[in-house]
Amino acid sequence: MPNVLKRLLVGRPLKTAQSTEERLTKRTALAVFSSDALSSVAYATDEILLVLVMAGSVGLGYSLPVAAAIIGLMLVVVVSYGQTIRAYPSGGGAYIVAKDNLGRYAGLIAGASLLVDYILTVAVSITAGVAAVTSAFPSLYGDRVEIGLAVLAFITLMNLRGIRESGRVFAVPAYVFIASLGALILVGLWRAATGTLPPPAPVAGNPAVWVITPIFLLRAFAAGCTALTGIEAISNGVQAFKKPETKNARITLFVMGALLACLFLGVTALARRIGVAPLENETVISQLARAVFGRGGFYFLIQAATAVILLLAANTSFADFPRLSSIMAKDRYLPVQLINLGDRLVYSNGIILLAAFSGALIFLFGGDTHRLIPLYAVGVFIGFSLSQFGMVRRWYVERGNGWLPRMLLNLIGGLATLVVLVIVASTKFTHGAWAVIAVIPLLVAMAVGTNRHYKHLKTRLSLTEERRIPVAQEHIAILFVSDLHKGTVAAARYAKGLRPTFIKALHIAFDEQDAAAMREKWTAWEMDIPLIIAPSPYRQLTEMLVHYVQEIERQHPAAAVTVVIPEFVCPHWWQLLLHNQTAARIKSELLHENVAVVSVPIQLAE
Amino acid sequence: MPNVLKRLLVGRPLKTAQSTEERLTKRTALAVFSSDALSSVAYATDEILLVLVMAGSVGLGYSLPVAAAIIGLMLVVVVSYGQTIRAYPSGGGAYIVAKDNLGRYAGLIAGASLLVDYILTVAVSITAGVAAVTSAFPSLYGDRVEIGLAVLAFITLMNLRGIRESGRVFAVPAYVFIASLGALILVGLWRAATGTLPPPAPVAGNPAVWVITPIFLLRAFAAGCTALTGIEAISNGVQAFKKPETKNARITLFVMGALLACLFLGVTALARRIGVAPLENETVISQLARAVFGRGGFYFLIQAATAVILLLAANTSFADFPRLSSIMAKDRYLPVQLINLGDRLVYSNGIILLAAFSGALIFLFGGDTHRLIPLYAVGVFIGFSLSQFGMVRRWYVERGNGWLPRMLLNLIGGLATLVVLVIVASTKFTHGAWAVIAVIPLLVAMAVGTNRHYKHLKTRLSLTEERRIPVAQEHIAILFVSDLHKGTVAAARYAKGLRPTFIKALHIAFDEQDAAAMREKWTAWEMDIPLIIAPSPYRQLTEMLVHYVQEIERQHPAAAVTVVIPEFVCPHWWQLLLHNQTAARIKSELLHENVAVVSVPIQLAE
Repeated sequence: MPNVLKRLLVGRPLKTAQSTEERLTKRTALAVFSSDALSSVAYATDEILLVLVMAGSVGLGYSLPVAAAIIGLMLVVVVSYGQTIRAYPSGGGAYIVAKDNLGRYAGLIAGASLLVDYILTVAVSITAGVAAVTSAFPSLYGDRVEIGLAVLAFITLMNLRGIRESGRVFAVPAYVFIASLGALILVGLWRAATGTLPPPAPVAGNPAVWVITPIFLLRAFAAGCTALTGIEAISNGVQAFKKPETKNARITLFVMGALLACLFLGVTALARRIGVAPLENETVISQLARAVFGRGGFYFLIQAATAVILLLAANTSFADFPRLSSIMAKDRYLPVQLINLGDRLVYSNGIILLAAFSGALIFLFGGDTHRLIPLYAVGVFIGFSLSQFGMVRRWYVERGNGWLPRMLLNLIGGLATLVVLVIVASTKFTHGAWAVIAVIPLLVAMAVGTNRHYKHLKTRLSLTEERRIPVAQEHIAILFVSDLHKGTVAAARYAKGLRPTFIKALHIAFDEQDAAAMREKWTAWEMDIPLIIAPSPYRQLTEMLVHYVQEIERQHPAAAVTVVIPEFVCPHWWQLLLHNQTAARIKSELLHENVAVVSVPIQLAE
Repeated sequence: MPNVLKRLLVGRPLKTAQSTEERLTKRTALAVFSSDALSSVAYATDEILLVLVMAGSVGLGYSLPVAAAIIGLMLVVVVSYGQTIRAYPSGGGAYIVAKDNLGRYAGLIAGASLLVDYILTVAVSITAGVAAVTSAFPSLYGDRVEIGLAVLAFITLMNLRGIRESGRVFAVPAYVFIASLGALILVGLWRAATGTLPPPAPVAGNPAVWVITPIFLLRAFAAGCTALTGIEAISNGVQAFKKPETKNARITLFVMGALLACLFLGVTALARRIGVAPLENETVISQLARAVFGRGGFYFLIQAATAVILLLAANTSFADFPRLSSIMAKDRYLPVQLINLGDRLVYSNGIILLAAFSGALIFLFGGDTHRLIPLYAVGVFIGFSLSQFGMVRRWYVERGNGWLPRMLLNLIGGLATLVVLVIVASTKFTHGAWAVIAVIPLLVAMAVGTNRHYKHLKTRLSLTEERRIPVAQEHIAILFVSDLHKGTVAAARYAKGLRPTFIKALHIAFDEQDAAAMREKWTAWEMDIPLIIAPSPYRQLTEMLVHYVQEIERQHPAAAVTVVIPEFVCPHWWQLLLHNQTAARIKSELLHENVAVVSVPIQLAE
């Protein structure tokens, strides 16, 4: 039955050979790779204004300079990644670049940051997408956690099925989003210039904050830096472009950077012009669209396009996270289960892991984008910075044609993102960034521990002089007897069939009555295997059995020892709850004693 | 390590022979068995007043008649149980009485009701005990769920350790509670009569309810019926009394009934006299004690005694629930795991189950006694009623000396409790009683299903002509090979040691490279077992293995088949997460195919 359910939800299995590659045109690639970056326009302005509004309308007046600084940073990062694309035409994620050029630990830090970042991308994008919906339909606001989790479940399921036609699915909503947001900005600024918009509502100033300090502006800047998330996506996917890959990827990156800068600046400028203040239950874009177009068809189009592009952004993490964890697992830094393709040729385990973590975040943070954001940018900027410094080192080591200007460009990028990282981490530390800063070293430590385990495994298992060890001449079978029934008799028959040197039956008795009763039954049924009854006044079954087996091994050091255990096989899973899991417990203990354990099935089906 | 932790918390194991019986004097027995019944005085009056106050001070005026009716019912129940004690000197819980006299289903309904009742006793008593504490220290009110769960954890741990000295532990707090509550009532009524108490504060009448309808009074009556919970305790434990058991138990029951009636009536009368109205965050007893004695030493003594006796009441369920579930498990209506005594000679599994359910209730109901109460009385009265009708049938079937008046007495008890059951179930239905009414048939159905499973098991396993089946002459070993390493070679050596008729090594290949690589390694290492490579383009390991085994079984129907699986043994539990649980999955599937499975351990420890 569980299998039937799985087939229904996930679809029939696909052959390994069915795995194919789709090459993308620049136009499609822009849509595929930019949803993460462009969608951050949907919440970045909100985050800046939420800081600035603490200083009232005076504070809100600083939104444009802050946005301009962020766009400057955007330019640096885009140019830097343009270089990465040239240097890593096979795809240069921060993990690979940092590992190749800065060594193992830098790579692991970058990898851990990226994994955290992907989880947060899913959580933030979904909650922001739900916010776009609840801005349009305020009555749904109370159910935003449930809606977010339902959307997450849907995306997860689609990814477990393996979405093949991704290119086309992405193109339409991405361009609708770009076009409708562009129209909003242009019409809005036009109407503002011609004075056909209502005047802005006055904003109450917070009397506690009068002086606009540099720290205050840095906080606003840090909050807005979420606008940069997703810029690195193209550099990971150079191989997906049509030839010439490098050139096409670079052009697409620059176009995306320009679009991102325009939309972000446009939204912030319009918000300033109209005098929008951030609200808890309505996004800035929704407020702008309502002010410019009224609550009509075009308003709903903008909200829908925003929601859809955010869901697509969440969806890209469902490709990135499993792919990166598969790469890291192949390097033996994550559990090997993450390497394998599932039934539908997708990394099912990675998808499920990502869904579990991001679902937990959506639940724990009450589906509130604004509370999740402080965790977000830290991981992103660690990745940016390590990737840039990795490039610096690469240029320096290789020193090929024209290496100096290229190295300087990446150095500027690395330094800029490092400074921003420090700003973001310190201004948002108490708001949640501390958790990410704590989790990343933990993940690195786990990765190192995992790696050590696999290395140890490999050494343990490597074949050296194994062949020379002879087959044991003596073979002792121990039949574990909990009671005398059909299953015991079948197991005894099986043990005899092994034709060991000798067999002993062992019963652990909790009290005298038990021992006497078993001895009597054993004689009555004429069992032709000698029965040993071991008393266990403390009712410790496994311990006594292990003790007895150790004794046998001590007496016959050269013999192979096999413990035969009758094991119930229940047709229904719930019936397992009706039995002591004695067999399983015994088996696990005995394997530690280096004894082979045979389970002889006793079928309970009709 | 988990074992060390267990020993630290639970203590060292005890021998089966160390199990002894403590016989109780009447005085100690009263303390041991009455905490459940007497402690209900701590909340029963609150529940009546919470209904009556909806009709304001007019409604509160009816508290004494309602209490009087409940005391009448109490008299009937006490007399009825006096007869049960005489008829069942070995202990006559509702499950046994109903099963013996009314048949299997009546017994199961009574058993299920009792189990639910015990869970609720723990939840209600703990939350009411915490309410006694938070009444005295209102600043703790916000943490009542956490305090309740901590107290539950403490009681659970004490019971898992096995509390031997229960008798003495119970006596002091029970008598302190009786004495201090008695003093409160007497001094309170005296001061009220002499006019040295401040006049009652006026109570605001609810304008919506002016007419005091019979339904309204029935609701108050049903709410107060929680005062009867726990009366049956003595009849379950007749064997714990010193000789003559029956006589001593009956005397103790009547004394307890009289005490319960006096305390309940006294508290209600004093509340009426002082004009106390129920408050959300202060119990009636706390209000009374404050009014009579002021917030001084005696006030805190009363609150402490109330809290302690409520915890002792919760504690009695920790003896009753595991004992009843062990009895029902011996009858094969509950999983057999509930039969066994744990390390410390207590029914550990039952204790853990009870703690889990009552903890969930405390959490789900926000630690609020008042919200839990509507679920409480239904189970209690089902038990009362079935037990009484069981006695009626017993007197009638036996028709011994003076059977008619005895039967009539129990008939009155049965009818009275049945009527109250209907009242309680209908007036509290929408407040939560529906859940209990839904859960009980579910539990009965589960018990019947469990019973059917065990019966089927017994039939399947009964020895008939088993001995005649000969030992298989042919023995085929199949070595499962996922990769060629030291573990594989060790497993191959073990398989050869079994000296089967023939061995085949089987590798499932997901693609062509994999197949070629394995074939090459197998040849290079000169493995002298024929290797079969089965392609699985859909990456389905278990399915292919099962398919191959079925094929072998078809070709050799008379042979015994053993599948040999190398299995990693990790020294640390977390390392298990780093491996596919392939061996376990394969084993479980193959056992369903009636094939013996050997795990050959590969030690990974240093």
